[in-house]
Amino acid sequence: MSKLIRRSVEEMAGYVPGEQPRGDEVIKLNTNENPYLPSPEVLDILREIDVADLGRYPDPVCLELRKAIAALHGCSVEHVFVGNGSDEVLALALRAFVERDARVGFLEPSYSLYPVLADIEDVRQERVRLNDRFGWEVPKKLESALFFLTNPNAPTSVVVDREQIERFADQFEGVLLVDEAYADFAEWHCLELALNRKNVLVSRSLSKSYSLAGIRCGYCVGDGALIEALYKIKDSYNVNYITQEVARVAVLDQATMQANVEAVKETRRLVADKLFGLGFEVFDSQTNFLWVKPLEISAVRLFEALKLRDIYVRYFGESEQTKDYLRVSIGTAPQMFSFLDAVEAILQES
Amino acid sequence: MSKLIRRSVEEMAGYVPGEQPRGDEVIKLNTNENPYLPSPEVLDILREIDVADLGRYPDPVCLELRKAIAALHGCSVEHVFVGNGSDEVLALALRAFVERDARVGFLEPSYSLYPVLADIEDVRQERVRLNDRFGWEVPKKLESALFFLTNPNAPTSVVVDREQIERFADQFEGVLLVDEAYADFAEWHCLELALNRKNVLVSRSLSKSYSLAGIRCGYCVGDGALIEALYKIKDSYNVNYITQEVARVAVLDQATMQANVEAVKETRRLVADKLFGLGFEVFDSQTNFLWVKPLEISAVRLFEALKLRDIYVRYFGESEQTKDYLRVSIGTAPQMFSFLDAVEAILQES
Repeated sequence: MSKLIRRSVEEMAGYVPGEQPRGDEVIKLNTNENPYLPSPEVLDILREIDVADLGRYPDPVCLELRKAIAALHGCSVEHVFVGNGSDEVLALALRAFVERDARVGFLEPSYSLYPVLADIEDVRQERVRLNDRFGWEVPKKLESALFFLTNPNAPTSVVVDREQIERFADQFEGVLLVDEAYADFAEWHCLELALNRKNVLVSRSLSKSYSLAGIRCGYCVGDGALIEALYKIKDSYNVNYITQEVARVAVLDQATMQANVEAVKETRRLVADKLFGLGFEVFDSQTNFLWVKPLEISAVRLFEALKLRDIYVRYFGESEQTKDYLRVSIGTAPQMFSFLDAVEAILQES
Repeated sequence: MSKLIRRSVEEMAGYVPGEQPRGDEVIKLNTNENPYLPSPEVLDILREIDVADLGRYPDPVCLELRKAIAALHGCSVEHVFVGNGSDEVLALALRAFVERDARVGFLEPSYSLYPVLADIEDVRQERVRLNDRFGWEVPKKLESALFFLTNPNAPTSVVVDREQIERFADQFEGVLLVDEAYADFAEWHCLELALNRKNVLVSRSLSKSYSLAGIRCGYCVGDGALIEALYKIKDSYNVNYITQEVARVAVLDQATMQANVEAVKETRRLVADKLFGLGFEVFDSQTNFLWVKPLEISAVRLFEALKLRDIYVRYFGESEQTKDYLRVSIGTAPQMFSFLDAVEAILQES
């Protein structure tokens, strides 16, 4: 009966999300979630929701939420698209901008969802391999119709040089989507670039800096024609009513988000220093996680030993490029002390 | 700059949802929403949600919700896929089961989203035109890889003969997706068919019978291989945490859903009789709306006159097949009395 299913779908492997172990004892540093509470306005709006409103279809174009986002970034609502998580934004971009016989480009290593999206649409991939330091040169000639430029990059935590991106945007003939899921933890971003070019989109997520991975909300900002194309092909009511309400009050409360981001960055500095002191190579993170190379123990052994102690970090062992590294999300200070204690103990035992 | 956007996306027209007028004065009978409150458990769970849980990614495969759905239908979780509204289920089915050079089939008239989904994927359409009574014969030979069989059909409110569907499932070589968004308002359904065939899926929605259009939740039931294909290509976290929780308690409370459905059906009978008495042709509805043909006034004139009185029904004027009809959602009894009074007044004035 396999002929019922599309060949490319049968052949592809799906995206594998990070493990979601439950239980109070577990320290979860493997999916880049934010350990702090979202805006207190979120609790208020949840308590105020009128269940009668759940019986009606939500606003198909998220107008009130887009107004809040547009005000934040100093643009108009026509430059904002809201999706069911930024994953939906990425998937729609591929469907809107890449013809069947064209290519989609992305960095390697980068967000492991991109090749899955390419497989789903059955379009060719153009991978730009990062160098040994996970740095990047503007490729001379790219043939992609769409390029996912993750900045700061995941899982490597580092940013590309700002001028490089501008040069890339100038040279590139396709749509450049700068995936800024982690930009609130970085020192700069590409929003102005997106608002001043015809071929640049910047995508953002409420999952990390706003502590709202559970509601699924992401958006992108850029030229009106690109935004309109995304609106044409999205599911009719892609963002539910509660998510629109929760996201709106969260975006309006920049103070809570910024305070949480500062707390994460402070912890990040501390953990980076400690890991460096313990003999790790630590990359200069502009995200809510650290990309580290243990030098005294193999990455996989450390990963497994931490897991035995109910501490989950992320290991990307399937590629030569990443198999010596670990990605460690920044949790609360107590969680990170437990993590550091565990690392120290494991190193001593080994 | 139009070369940035896929040709087929540039050329297509997007889906046009029914108008969503706001305001307390408006009587909204145009998008088949349920006028009654969802399960009281929904309010309880919303009040109980721990905002800390919103910081974590939701279960990517909706396990607890699928358990509730599987228990309801007497199947196992492997036979259940949950989507961000049943619209997502339909869109994913097209991407999972229709090769680029293949076709997708559907009834005409039927749910106006289907041709939009076909345009998005740029696959050919095979339309099966309903007869003047909006009835249907099993087509001798269909070439589609996937057929959306809407039963009960929208906007026509009627069901196909049960044996016809079974015969169709036997003959058809592609995937038959029976879109049962309205099945809770009907006298029978195709769930058993889906659970006993390799090529049949049944999709359901929580938008109508469960009064939860705002949370975006739909699902489909069928063969494990088909379900698995949908899971491969969905967005990683397609259903948010709150929707999973709300949908789960709503599905577990069948009593509230059934009571609301009974109220709708009772009002439906009453309104159907009254409209018949006012000289309308009224089709035998198995849904939460009526498909009617005004005989004393043109459909478009009645539509416009109702709108002037802040009563919104749905008019599909773009097609010869449907331009003489109106689709009227069943609201509360007071809303329907206001609607009937308005119709009577308009008929007298004209």
